[in-house]
Formats: sequence, C-alpha cells, structure tokens
Amino acid sequence: MLADIGLVGLGVMGGNLALNMAEKGFTVAVHSLDWDAVTTFVAEAGDLGQRLIPARTMAEFVGRIRAPRSVILLVPAGAVDVVMRQLGAALSRGDSVIDAGNSDYHETERRQREMAQFGVTVLGVGISGGHEGARNGPSIMAGGPVQAYRMVEPVLTAVSAKFEGEACCAWLGPGGAGHFVKTIHNGIEYADIQMIAEIYGVMRDGLGLTAPEMAKVFEDWNRGRLNSYLIEITARVLATIDEATTRPLVDLIVDRAEQKGTGRWAVIEAQRLGVSAETLEAAVGARVLSSLGQQRSAAEKLYAIPRGRWKAPKEAAIPVLEQALFAGKIMAYAQGFAVMAHASEENVWNLPLGTIASIWRAGCIIRSQFLDIITDTFRMDEATLNLLLAPRFIAMMSENHQGLRETVAEAARAGLPVPALSAALAAFDGYRQARGTANLIQGLRDYFGSHSFERSDRVGAQHGPWNR
Amino acid sequence: MLADIGLVGLGVMGGNLALNMAEKGFTVAVHSLDWDAVTTFVAEAGDLGQRLIPARTMAEFVGRIRAPRSVILLVPAGAVDVVMRQLGAALSRGDSVIDAGNSDYHETERRQREMAQFGVTVLGVGISGGHEGARNGPSIMAGGPVQAYRMVEPVLTAVSAKFEGEACCAWLGPGGAGHFVKTIHNGIEYADIQMIAEIYGVMRDGLGLTAPEMAKVFEDWNRGRLNSYLIEITARVLATIDEATTRPLVDLIVDRAEQKGTGRWAVIEAQRLGVSAETLEAAVGARVLSSLGQQRSAAEKLYAIPRGRWKAPKEAAIPVLEQALFAGKIMAYAQGFAVMAHASEENVWNLPLGTIASIWRAGCIIRSQFLDIITDTFRMDEATLNLLLAPRFIAMMSENHQGLRETVAEAARAGLPVPALSAALAAFDGYRQARGTANLIQGLRDYFGSHSFERSDRVGAQHGPWNR
Repeated sequence: MLADIGLVGLGVMGGNLALNMAEKGFTVAVHSLDWDAVTTFVAEAGDLGQRLIPARTMAEFVGRIRAPRSVILLVPAGAVDVVMRQLGAALSRGDSVIDAGNSDYHETERRQREMAQFGVTVLGVGISGGHEGARNGPSIMAGGPVQAYRMVEPVLTAVSAKFEGEACCAWLGPGGAGHFVKTIHNGIEYADIQMIAEIYGVMRDGLGLTAPEMAKVFEDWNRGRLNSYLIEITARVLATIDEATTRPLVDLIVDRAEQKGTGRWAVIEAQRLGVSAETLEAAVGARVLSSLGQQRSAAEKLYAIPRGRWKAPKEAAIPVLEQALFAGKIMAYAQGFAVMAHASEENVWNLPLGTIASIWRAGCIIRSQFLDIITDTFRMDEATLNLLLAPRFIAMMSENHQGLRETVAEAARAGLPVPALSAALAAFDGYRQARGTANLIQGLRDYFGSHSFERSDRVGAQHGPWNR
Repeated sequence: MLADIGLVGLGVMGGNLALNMAEKGFTVAVHSLDWDAVTTFVAEAGDLGQRLIPARTMAEFVGRIRAPRSVILLVPAGAVDVVMRQLGAALSRGDSVIDAGNSDYHETERRQREMAQFGVTVLGVGISGGHEGARNGPSIMAGGPVQAYRMVEPVLTAVSAKFEGEACCAWLGPGGAGHFVKTIHNGIEYADIQMIAEIYGVMRDGLGLTAPEMAKVFEDWNRGRLNSYLIEITARVLATIDEATTRPLVDLIVDRAEQKGTGRWAVIEAQRLGVSAETLEAAVGARVLSSLGQQRSAAEKLYAIPRGRWKAPKEAAIPVLEQALFAGKIMAYAQGFAVMAHASEENVWNLPLGTIASIWRAGCIIRSQFLDIITDTFRMDEATLNLLLAPRFIAMMSENHQGLRETVAEAARAGLPVPALSAALAAFDGYRQARGTANLIQGLRDYFGSHSFERSDRVGAQHGPWNR
C-alpha cells in the first residue's frame, strides 16, 4: 500500500495534522528523526493508525509514497534546510515539498530555487490554528507553483477548517506568497493580542477588577461585535483558577512574552515596503519590553510616579474600553491588509485580499466575526486601497473612535501603557488629516540639507530663501 | 605635486568637503564622472583651487595621490559599487577607500570583503551636518580597519567640527560600525524632527498660532534646555516669509516628506536586534503617511470628525508642550542608544557610547546641549544599560513626563496626531512598570499553541489546566 502523502516531523503540529489527514481518509507516510517517536505516535493513534505508514529512513519514507509525491514538512525552523536537502536527494523529478512551518518567505523563495535543481517544487504553506487547529481544521495559506498546489489541494482542503461550508484553504500566489501572508497574519495576531493585553491592564490597574470579573467582561464582549476566538479564550484564561493556590492562574504567570520571530518579520517587511504598520510594531515592541523584567523592576523603583486610577467608574469605563478595542482592531487590520496590498504589487503576486480574509474566518487564531466584514468588503471591491476608505469601515470607525480616544487620553493621564492603542489612534488621526505637518519637515530638510521641497502654488522642486 | 588625499564625487557634500580639506591645508585630488563639473568646481574655488588637483580619468586621479593612498567617496548611493570597483582595479595594495556616503552597514561590510582581494581596505564613515557641515566642520563617525583610519585621521580630524576644542570625529569600531552609528544618528534625527513637527501641529491646529508666532515660541525654547540646531532652524523656517505671496513660506510647502532610507534602516536594525525603538518607528511611519496625500484628503472628507481646539489657553499650553518635546526627546535618545548598545554586543564592536554622544555635540544635525548631558552620563558610567536608569535622566524625566502625558491626552481628545510623542509616553510608562501585562499574553499563547509559560512561584515551563 502506498501513501497518498508524506509528512516529516511529528511534533505537536505535525502529529495533529497527520491524525487530521488520516481521519479524512488519506493514507500518510510519517517520518521523523526520532524513530521511537514515530512508532509511539502510530501506536497511540488508535484506529487512525491503520492509515499511518511509519518509515524509519528517508529512503524508506520516500519509497512508501505514491508518485508524484507530496511531502509535508512540519519540523522546527532550524531543521528545515537539513531535511529539505535530504528530501532533495531522495525525491524524484516532479515531486514536491510543502513547508508548512513558519518560514521567512525569503528563505522559502531561496529553497524553491535550490530544490529546482532536483526538479522538486517547494510550496510555502502557512498553517494557523495551533495544535487544535492542526487536529480539527486549520486555516491554510498556500503559495508557490500552482501545479504543485493542485496536486495536494484535495488533502489540504479536506483537512482545513470550514466556514459555512467554505474551506479555509487557498492558493494565494506564486513564490513565497503563502508564507508572506502567514507572516502578516501573525503580525495582526500580535496586535490583536497586545490590544487585549492593554485593555486587560487598564481593567486590572486602572479599574481594579479581579481576573474573574474581567473574564465576565470578555465573555460579555464575545457575544457582540468583538466575537472572536481570541476574546473567547481570553475570558477562559482569566476565569481559570489555579488549584494549588486557589488564585486566578493569570496572576501567577510571569509577565514575559516569548516570540518566535514572525511578528518581527511582519514589521520588517512593512518597513521594507514603506507601509505604516505602527499597531503591529507596537505589539512587537511590547513583547521586547516584556523581556526586560529586571530593568522594569529597577525603573519602577527609580521613578516614583504614581499610577492613577481611572477617572470614570467601571460601569461607564467598560463600554468605552470595548469601543477602544474594536477601533484598535480596525486599525490593526487596515494596516495588515495595506502591507499585503503593497507586497502584492511589489512582488507581482496578485494576492486575493478577499480570499485571504475569507480563509481566516475559521480555523486560525485570529478567526472572528470581524473577518467576515473584511471578506465582504473586498468581495464588493477588490481594489479597496485601504479598509479605512470602505463604507462599512467608515461607519464602524466613526462609531468607535471616541472610545479609543478616551481610553488613550485617560491611560496617558493615569500612567498606564497602551502602546498599540495609542499607535492605532495616532495612525487614524494622521490618516484622516488632509494637511499634515510634513511641510515643516520638508522646510527643515531643505534648510540643513538642500533637499528641496514642493510648493502648493508652483510646479517643481523649490529651495527656501533661508536667511543665515 | 602629489595630493595628500583623493576625493571622488563633487556633489553638494563632496564639493564642500573638498573645499574644507583644502582650507585646512591639505592638497586634494578631485575626480568625478562629469569632467566639466570638475573643472568648473576647481575654477570657482578661488584661492583654494591651488590645493585642488583635477583628474580626468581614474588612472590619472590615482596617480596624483601620494601612496599609500586614501580616497574619499562621496557619490550617490546607487553609484558606490561602480566607483568602488573602478577603484579596486586602479588602486594598489595598502591603499584605502573611505565611503563617506550613507551606506547600509551590511553593504559596507560586503564591500570590505570584496575589496580585500585587491589588498584595499574600506572605511565606512558617516558624515553628518548637511552641506554647511561638510564645508565648515561636520561630525564624523568612522568605522573599519583601525590602521586605515589612522592614515586618514589627521585629515578627518582637521576638517571635523570642534566642541569646546574637542574634534567631533572618532573611530568607533571595526567593520560597518561607523555607518551603523550614522544610521542610528539618522533614526534619532527622524524622531527629533517628527516630534518637533507634532508640536508644531498642535500649535497650528490646536492653539491656532500663526507661523511667525510659533517661530517666537521655538526661538524662546532654543534659549532653554531644548537648545539645539534643529530647534534653532525650526524657528528660522517658521519665521521665513515668502516674498511673492507675503505669506509664511511653511504654509506653502507641500506636506509630503521625503526619505532616503536611513531612518528605515535604523528601525529595521532595531527590529533585527530585538530592541524597542517605537519613537523612531513612529517617525518613519509618519513620513510614509505623509506620502499618501490623496488617501488622506479622501479620508478627511469621509470622516466627518471635528478636530477640537486645545482645552488650555495658549499661555498655559506652551510650557506643557515644551515639557512634552523634552520628555519625548529623552525617550528617542534612550531608545537610539539602546539600539547601539545591543548592536555593539551582537557584533562585538565595543562601541564607545560616550564618545558617540560627544562627537554629536557639534557639526551634526542633531547637535544640542542635551548631547552634552548624554556624554557626561556615559563618561561617568560607560555600562549604563539604558539612559532612563541614569540619575540625571531620572531627574529630567520625572520633571517632564507630566507635560508629555497632558499633551498626548489632550491631542487624543482633540483629534491631533502625535504618533512619536504617544509612542514615547507608552514606552516610558511600560518601562517603569515592574509587572506588565504579558502574563495574559503567555496564558493565551499556552492556551492556543501549548507554548508554555513560567510561574512566579515555581521553576520551569508550565502549562495551564485550560478547561475546554
């Protein structure tokens, strides 16, 4: 019996995806550097184990897959090149490798070039949804040679999440387009999570709410327009009580957030493209700051600046905070989609922004009701330059900016850090300003560097008659 | 007669530097692709022309310089590699090229490797001060092989700016250290300028001041602790009246700021190093936004959100804005120096932060009284982890954060964008917070991705008992 597909890597993502494929009726050859892990995995797979073909060596693994072969790679980032080279040697012309990990899209494009010498195509595929998603249906963002995608499409579509019957899986473009989109997905996820954490901080330190009280607030918000996986699990995390201490678990967790690099890649790409993505940048910055626990402790002692309580009582404050979170979310998504629109143009990828929004509606970490609105927006007008210019977004932002405004203002006064929400507000107020302040910047640049400026009443580069 | 030094490129920077060198008594061989430009330049140099040796070809140019030769390159960024290759072919073993343009330090290090095959060393040297600086004394940040620097040190020191007798010129480290420091200098310059522009926006749109009125405010501030070249020229730019229209010139300048890339490089480097530099990022973001004039005009019409006037009367508001600008400046420099400290460690450059601050005190665009305080701080304790932890900075920030706070809060309410000032405040309030909110982030990451977290009361990686 030959397998329909191969999978290398049986970590938490790879293992769950293998089970998901087996459950959908596909036979999967599985391989890992650790042979014991392979046999244990197959033994523990129960009935699904019948559709798993364990392979000890790379040669055996390749031999057990029906040609032309599709091999999914879900190995740690540091191991991708090593395994890719082994596969290059073992696979045949016409086979393809699907790198389903979080790879930098530039690396993916390098690997596509390198594997071409073996006649092997490489797809860069982003998978979001954590281990649960991998097991029960993730969102799948594919990129690379479309013919290779067509070969593996039935499997990917079958295992992916479904939103009202539509598979959350699509080919998004050539080259590294799939991994690029996954990178921006993660950048947006960083911003989403950071803004939730900022609102949590305001409720904890400004309003004095306990974790269980905040859990109720998020639970309540999850029934409204903020409805999303992240708000849902925020409520659950806040509601969780540690058995040993009977205290809310969140109060015992060290405030140092790890990052695996995708958020950072997202903002570096935004910078390279020359697109504003300050809410994403603020979220990455906040994770960096979280790692400086010792400096922060020292600084708290050195700066004897009290943190004031919120002026408004909590009943009045909570709806304002909900508005702030929603308005901030709008800005984060507007910026994330603007980054993708620019990358699409720069790389001639022709990214289908509406499709991207649609496959994020289920399976992935940022799945939400809100993404359905974005899907509709791009389906109505794929050429939308910026979500902030679309009618539904104008309406939503007009209704909610006031809450964002009050939250940023009050946080500034109270001494509570809201970096991503502040960045969102500044970006919004800057975006809706026909006459900004860069005229002064150009005046200065011409003064010190003869860089010239344009005048609103003349054509061409001008210099000032600076009197020195 | 053989020249002491050669110079390729007679644009505004190169030409002025040639005159500066000649004035200090050095004989300079000058060359440019455009022979007419060379002859015109020498003809117009007056008496100084006697120390300029025009050379038509690269071979002639090289032949007119005393060996071992030092050749300064001041050509447009796009031409550096071309000229470098010509020089590689024409120069002899032991000669060196000084790239004095704004090059990405990674490119500088690549060129150092490439030119090594000819036995030619490359110095990457940042020069700041605009055309006036180049003519009368710029700040000079050198990096690369120290022996090559020693050869050219007498010339660079002689032409550089002086601060109380000290030359604003130093060798800062091997490899691309010089160009890296210049990149961060420019990132800080972006932030400095952006915060000035934000305060200008508040005065213009929030307080309704005219350009001449604002010129007086900046003139006044320049007599205090904000004393700096940029504040001084801001006052001059604002005071300049356009003859043709008799209106303030700044009101006629198009609000679209150009950028040459160094600010963007600075924030990309900060991201790569994993250091927070949100004030610099906000400044780069604001320039990007300034280029979207059409979208901004459309958005202003689509969002019928009034921009309120400042609550406080201008007499009360102006001292608050001065505090805000000073506090924002502190944050920008703290972040810029933190980026350099990390880069120094990562690249084993051993960057002398005190020396860097000291050579920025005169000649360069960001020269200021404030840099003298930074110089003193690092001279007292070179190991200062972050300027915010140094006694004088604690005192300054404690005295001024309130103005930053009120400005950000009021700008949020009034709808005026202050992205860099907001980023500065959020970074400050986050930095002085021993217990942040990343504990919630870690809870969420463990919930959806089994990424684990640490507990304050236990050792090692933990997982939550998330009830699903």
